[in-house]
Amino acid sequence: MTTTAADTTAPTDGDERGQTSGHTSAQESVPHGGHGYAKQKDQHLKRLRRIEGQIRGLQRMVEEDVYCIDILTQVSAGTKALQSFALQLLEEHLRHCVASAAVESAAQGETEGTSEVDAKVAEATAAIARLLRT
Amino acid sequence: MTTTAADTTAPTDGDERGQTSGHTSAQESVPHGGHGYAKQKDQHLKRLRRIEGQIRGLQRMVEEDVYCIDILTQVSAGTKALQSFALQLLEEHLRHCVASAAVESAAQGETEGTSEVDAKVAEATAAIARLLRT
Amino acid sequence: MTTTAADTTAPTDGDERGQTSGHTSAQESVPHGGHGYAKQKDQHLKRLRRIEGQIRGLQRMVEEDVYCIDILTQVSAGTKALQSFALQLLEEHLRHCVASAAVESAAQGETEGTSEVDAKVAEATAAIARLLRT
Amino acid sequence: MTTTAADTTAPTDGDERGQTSGHTSAQESVPHGGHGYAKQKDQHLKRLRRIEGQIRGLQRMVEEDVYCIDILTQVSAGTKALQSFALQLLEEHLRHCVASAAVESAAQGETEGTSEVDAKVAEATAAIARLLRT
Repeated sequence: MTTTAADTTAPTDGDERGQTSGHTSAQESVPHGGHGYAKQKDQHLKRLRRIEGQIRGLQRMVEEDVYCIDILTQVSAGTKALQSFALQLLEEHLRHCVASAAVESAAQGETEGTSEVDAKVAEATAAIARLLRT
Repeated sequence: MTTTAADTTAPTDGDERGQTSGHTSAQESVPHGGHGYAKQKDQHLKRLRRIEGQIRGLQRMVEEDVYCIDILTQVSAGTKALQSFALQLLEEHLRHCVASAAVESAAQGETEGTSEVDAKVAEATAAIARLLRT
Repeated sequence: MTTTAADTTAPTDGDERGQTSGHTSAQESVPHGGHGYAKQKDQHLKRLRRIEGQIRGLQRMVEEDVYCIDILTQVSAGTKALQSFALQLLEEHLRHCVASAAVESAAQGETEGTSEVDAKVAEATAAIARLLRT
Repeated sequence: MTTTAADTTAPTDGDERGQTSGHTSAQESVPHGGHGYAKQKDQHLKRLRRIEGQIRGLQRMVEEDVYCIDILTQVSAGTKALQSFALQLLEEHLRHCVASAAVESAAQGETEGTSEVDAKVAEATAAIARLLRT
């Protein structure tokens, strides 16, 4: 179950990774993304449209006075789907954005743990904390 | 133990739903059913439409290549909104359905903790477990 | 809103506790209170001692510089064990305390949803919200 | 609150980072950790001893028949403390282990997204999924 989180993300390579990984590093690191990224983007949109459908399904359930417990089960499914989406985004972000920040700082002859890498890691950790606290 | 019970939520259909959906208690206690319930229903639908809007907002963010971390923040907001909706549903369910099952069993001269009440409580706990495990 | 209610849990002491802690229902329904409760108490203490052992295991892992990911896996196991303990407590609370409040108010000729039952349900929902928000 | 997750981790530098980041990379990347790491280790052990105290407090509460809701509040505090510990570990892991894997692969003239970096990121994401699913 946890492994699926790792499995869901296709490795990417190509030309436009900068778009995934925040406009800051878009210029700095060209060699990524491209069609791989476009494919991920389609997957993300498919997932989100499916989740949107789940939410509309919840509205129908409420309108039809479906039993509370059955509605709660559908809410759990929607929450789980949102978290899986978040985990896939997070994995791509760690691979492209955090890792490339480390590569760039090293390329500039800096040791690991520069303020750039630290800032990216702190930012990602804060995002994970927000996911955990909800 | 609670997780196994997670599978026990039977799908409901129009005929049987009324029997399980706490509407039985609506007749018994007019102040809680009827218009009170209709008002809650509107609130639930408003909440769900707002959440649907958040999911569509996520689709726009992905299409516009918004920075991953900002998308993750929006995902956390959507998850939190779904959980708040679930908590409100759960509170109403405990008040109307579980409490009224206890009242009914008592009205039939049964002691607290009848199989009816136990079943309702186990069902609610399994639903809470599903919310926690997502 | 539920989180604000988080502060409402009044501290309990020996004299008043019995009134709130489901011991009242122990008298009303002997099969659920008394020895049944004592047996649950032993189970709870066994669970908690096992969790205490997991936390000490985490300390050893940190002292022995075990790989972070393996420590995180053990943290997840500890969190899951705490949540299972919470769900068991919650189920007993709903069965004994909330249900018996409904029975008592009915015995006093009140309709379902008295302020007593509502207060118990709001209190339980706030506790569930605290479990979800962590 | 989410920012605290980021704030709790002191940046480290020194000589023995390998110890934090798994024995695999201990040899590969000497320049990290040292006293910084030893200080973190003490902080981790202090946190865990505090959590162990919370679990023993829960045992006392059960023995003294404290009101269920008050025990549940203490369970939530323990779960929150375990999650904060996990977030601190995770941040250190991302900074030292994932980032250094990227630096090492780059040092070997490889492009970002090598199997080494991908494996580290997938491993970290699976650990985050385990934390989310509990």
